[in-house]
Amino acid sequence: MHIFDPISDAEIRTTARLLKDLNGDAKVHFVQIDRLDPPKKQALRYLSVERHGGAPLPRIPRRTYAYYYLNDRMPLYKALCNVSDGRVIANQATPEGTVGPLLPEDVEAVEAAILAHPAVQAEIAKLKLDALSYNHSALGPLGYSVVCEPWMYGTDSPHDKIPLIQAYMYLKLDHPEANHYSIPLKFSPVFEYLTHAFVRIDYLPSGADESLVHNTLPHTVLPTVEYHPELLEDVPPRDGLKPLIVSQPEGASFTVDGSKITWQDWEFRVATNVREGLAIYDVHFKGRSLFYRASLEEMTVPYGDSRAPFHRKQAFDLGDCGFGNSANSLALGCHCLGVIKYLDTRRSDSEGNPVLIPSTVCMHEQDYGILYLHKNYRNGKTVTTRRREFVVQTIATVANYEYILNFVFDQAGAITVQVRATGILSTMPNDDNNVTDFGTIVGPGVTAAYHQHLLSFRFDTRIDGDKNTVVYDDYVPMEENTAMNPYNVGFRQVRSYMDKSGYIDQSPFTNRTYKVINENSINPVTMKPVGYKFEMPAKQMILASKNSYNVKRAHYATKQFWVSKYHDDQLYAAGEFTNQSQGDTGLSKWADGTESVRNTDTVVWATLALTHPPVTEQFPVMTSDFMQFLVTPASFFTKNPALDVPLANNNFNKSVYYEDAQKAAGLATGESQSSSASCCKSNI
Amino acid sequence: MHIFDPISDAEIRTTARLLKDLNGDAKVHFVQIDRLDPPKKQALRYLSVERHGGAPLPRIPRRTYAYYYLNDRMPLYKALCNVSDGRVIANQATPEGTVGPLLPEDVEAVEAAILAHPAVQAEIAKLKLDALSYNHSALGPLGYSVVCEPWMYGTDSPHDKIPLIQAYMYLKLDHPEANHYSIPLKFSPVFEYLTHAFVRIDYLPSGADESLVHNTLPHTVLPTVEYHPELLEDVPPRDGLKPLIVSQPEGASFTVDGSKITWQDWEFRVATNVREGLAIYDVHFKGRSLFYRASLEEMTVPYGDSRAPFHRKQAFDLGDCGFGNSANSLALGCHCLGVIKYLDTRRSDSEGNPVLIPSTVCMHEQDYGILYLHKNYRNGKTVTTRRREFVVQTIATVANYEYILNFVFDQAGAITVQVRATGILSTMPNDDNNVTDFGTIVGPGVTAAYHQHLLSFRFDTRIDGDKNTVVYDDYVPMEENTAMNPYNVGFRQVRSYMDKSGYIDQSPFTNRTYKVINENSINPVTMKPVGYKFEMPAKQMILASKNSYNVKRAHYATKQFWVSKYHDDQLYAAGEFTNQSQGDTGLSKWADGTESVRNTDTVVWATLALTHPPVTEQFPVMTSDFMQFLVTPASFFTKNPALDVPLANNNFNKSVYYEDAQKAAGLATGESQSSSASCCKSNI
Repeated sequence: MHIFDPISDAEIRTTARLLKDLNGDAKVHFVQIDRLDPPKKQALRYLSVERHGGAPLPRIPRRTYAYYYLNDRMPLYKALCNVSDGRVIANQATPEGTVGPLLPEDVEAVEAAILAHPAVQAEIAKLKLDALSYNHSALGPLGYSVVCEPWMYGTDSPHDKIPLIQAYMYLKLDHPEANHYSIPLKFSPVFEYLTHAFVRIDYLPSGADESLVHNTLPHTVLPTVEYHPELLEDVPPRDGLKPLIVSQPEGASFTVDGSKITWQDWEFRVATNVREGLAIYDVHFKGRSLFYRASLEEMTVPYGDSRAPFHRKQAFDLGDCGFGNSANSLALGCHCLGVIKYLDTRRSDSEGNPVLIPSTVCMHEQDYGILYLHKNYRNGKTVTTRRREFVVQTIATVANYEYILNFVFDQAGAITVQVRATGILSTMPNDDNNVTDFGTIVGPGVTAAYHQHLLSFRFDTRIDGDKNTVVYDDYVPMEENTAMNPYNVGFRQVRSYMDKSGYIDQSPFTNRTYKVINENSINPVTMKPVGYKFEMPAKQMILASKNSYNVKRAHYATKQFWVSKYHDDQLYAAGEFTNQSQGDTGLSKWADGTESVRNTDTVVWATLALTHPPVTEQFPVMTSDFMQFLVTPASFFTKNPALDVPLANNNFNKSVYYEDAQKAAGLATGESQSSSASCCKSNI
Repeated sequence: MHIFDPISDAEIRTTARLLKDLNGDAKVHFVQIDRLDPPKKQALRYLSVERHGGAPLPRIPRRTYAYYYLNDRMPLYKALCNVSDGRVIANQATPEGTVGPLLPEDVEAVEAAILAHPAVQAEIAKLKLDALSYNHSALGPLGYSVVCEPWMYGTDSPHDKIPLIQAYMYLKLDHPEANHYSIPLKFSPVFEYLTHAFVRIDYLPSGADESLVHNTLPHTVLPTVEYHPELLEDVPPRDGLKPLIVSQPEGASFTVDGSKITWQDWEFRVATNVREGLAIYDVHFKGRSLFYRASLEEMTVPYGDSRAPFHRKQAFDLGDCGFGNSANSLALGCHCLGVIKYLDTRRSDSEGNPVLIPSTVCMHEQDYGILYLHKNYRNGKTVTTRRREFVVQTIATVANYEYILNFVFDQAGAITVQVRATGILSTMPNDDNNVTDFGTIVGPGVTAAYHQHLLSFRFDTRIDGDKNTVVYDDYVPMEENTAMNPYNVGFRQVRSYMDKSGYIDQSPFTNRTYKVINENSINPVTMKPVGYKFEMPAKQMILASKNSYNVKRAHYATKQFWVSKYHDDQLYAAGEFTNQSQGDTGLSKWADGTESVRNTDTVVWATLALTHPPVTEQFPVMTSDFMQFLVTPASFFTKNPALDVPLANNNFNKSVYYEDAQKAAGLATGESQSSSASCCKSNI
């Protein structure tokens, strides 16, 4: 196995066995088992030999980590195992109050326990559902059933030292595709997560402030807002969409060898894991090193609705749940087109048994328009190349929301990191159509609160070598009315260096650009250090006050771009344990300005932020909202690295005139295409 | 003909004849003839009858405009013609000093005249080219020839009252595909544009400031940086790219009837013109009105190199040249894939004869990933829809640069306006590898100066009716430690209204969002006015000083978002005449805060800005640099308008497993895809 290959079933079993043996008769309740990267020093030696030879590949034992409880009680334990040699490296209780991440089986178990609990059943009884039905125009009368949606409890006091669950309750029509988010109920049970012990029931505010809080009353039938075609009442299917088929008769342009991907001068490894979904390792383009490791490693979703208990709605979708745990099984024809390679994820259940989540990552090529083009107007000669992209995609479902994560590689050495937020808005009950300035009414009796998504991407850079420096460039006017600038049109670049760990403030109006350069590698053309730039959109960061737990727990979300010195095990921006955390144990500690990051082993952390005030078009399911940034060469190569891409040609691309296609399909059309321009002279 | 159909050959001829008759024996030198929209009041009546019937379509005479000189002398004349009835409506000299736009034939003529002129030939002789050749590793020894690149002269004094041309001179290897931008020369002739009279020769600075200016010396052979495969010396073609074919066996999902396009609940008209390339008219989605007219109507490209004469490099690519005049003839397999509909552009030559530019607009569909997706984790049921897009594309070549303009329509009522900048950087000579902070060395002896692209898009809005209001929403924290916000996590929306014409300042850190709403149309779900939002990236606007001609001529470029009241003939952000202009006669006059724009016929102007410090990867031809903004419904519909889009299914999309594709293509592959997830239950 390669050092970066994902965890195997055997490694999960070995880890579980080692820790059960260690803990004798106690009930070992695993909440997460996964692979741990080797120490970077060892890994770099391995990668060097792998790439350049000269020695046998060093043997590096495979390591795993496990989080577990004993007898369903605090504390949470953390263990490290050497699964190559079958021994426990370390095992200790985490600091007091540390709560582990959620495990799908445990969430389903507490969900069932909550629904079955007499106190909850008593509330449900008050709804008097037996008497109710909704008369669906297509399906006739439909009854209701109750849905329990467990949420991470969040934090609003330093005293929550046991794992808790806050359940938001909904009704749904009795149909398997019904949208329960359309009927939020007004009571919210709180239970102990591990023991399923009842704690209390919160009654939800349903007005413009906290003043309107009901005891549970008989439910009033209102129309629901459904998304599935079988349940749509007033929406006939849209016609006219003809097939658009992507065919690759000669196969894919990429090759997959285990975790190793090779495509269009790119080489890297893709490994799934339960927390991040996937990580990309050892990235090279045209034989030159770019990144040691890149991943999305945290996302917090704080809500702006301050009414208790909604103020506690702050998800850490990776730290609390895990994008791998939440990954969709992707399928042909649904999630990407063309020739598709799928990868699987393996996780552990609470017993330490391996669980396969098939096809959690899909990889494919797509065409995205023109890569570059130029026409010499003097002789009409044109060069045109098509932009082919290679996409590594995973999709996580975290209760209501879906997140589509794409790492998009182009043929010119750039990576576009794109996230599409889709799925369903988290909804709150709303009586009497209360209009507020912190939520949007999205249906009868239902409001979606304003919230934010703040994603942290970690790039462990190796730009042309192991020692990198982070700079930011601003563009400012030259001094006016000087000998150099008599006409007051001049502007220039001002470069600033990050000497110590910390953050860079956003400055879109100076076109501030973040770059990772290698001061030891000078571009022979520009005679300046080679680099890669991070083109980030200027965005509002976390809106909550610095005096809020939201910010104490997600300090990383206060700034867009962070720089830290590399240390093993500094992987997650908000720290290792986020569920019910009291504070950020990540970047607030690692990027505190004390360490030098100049010309050394640096890590950069890019925060992608979206302030999301819902609109009606986003309910009952939202069209993908796009967020993205670009990681692209900035005088890293001596010239355009894609000059070797074959010129476009219709012998290769086989496009068709509209008129000919419509005739061939037996459809009416206007006059034939009169004049056909000639494509650029092509070398394919 | 429809009122928005582009100009016909007959209309060009009629216009020319009318104005030649009017001007008797004088030589009429046309520089632009095109169609003029009808007065909006008449057009709206026409569109209402066309859509709702109830009366015969009103007859609206077709109108044209023409710019021309008499006997190749100032002043520039402007005429309006009624070509339906064959009469001149208006004809007058433009204000003193007004210079007309450039015409391709005239540029070619002055280019030839400059090259042939003894003063220029004398400079060329000093280069001693006969003695020189470059020994190309593949093609053997190649000689040099001289290239003349005429530039709009620009403005740096109020005294340039005659049309001038500044020519930048280059050498190229004797090969039809050679890149002359790699060998900039150091002399720059200035000529009168109309008479071809010699004015002077400017000698170009080639150092870090203006101190290093040579008389012309014998040329020194240096390696060139070439982009065409036939000329590449050290770059073997990249292999491994397999065909990716987009096939639409049942034809296109869109229909074209003259200028009318119908696709996936969209209806609009696309009409080409010589100045903007194209304009989109009468845009409706799901039968509701959105826009009367939308187009890119100006772009200025100021350079930050303050060294004379480079300080005068400020192109207005639409006003000075015209995106239609500069449009590429697009071809199958080069510029888009699948089933393609092309449209042509017709322009006038200097004699008033029609000139056909074939296939200047291509229209096609593309798949761009997932439109929306949700999985109910309780039962594993998933809905997934693919995002199909309809793209209206045109590509302009303005000397060195290419601009790819895409209007991208999705299935959910949104329009993405995307511009890709590609082509070749405008280059300056550089002796002794001078490193500066206002330019990037991109090859031996050649520097590309920092510059900006500032594009103005005009949207004449008709959001659900003729009376619209422009607002901007900010998102701000709730007051801390209050009864409403005890945990300091709350945030809310603050709405501001544009009552008077003017601009809206950027404010990314309050997530400021520009919206056009209709106060007369209340969304029954949100109980607030319906609207559309403009999602613009926060960007640096023009860097030149307000005391520069760059800004006086392009006042629009100082702000991102402008609002004006509709008036006929207020179409171009920097005014009607930009070539050698002394000042902006557009938004600086039309959005000066004097007119009410609340709940009336409003026009919004969005400035898309890119500060462009070149990198070596962008030479000798640059990979497309993307700029885009989104125009998307903001509680315009009562729910997601794309719920009627059929769910994705592989019977429809016909994707293939990597392993199967590689086997079919006779290629090696790993183990077969073990587990296949099931696609969402589909209704297609």
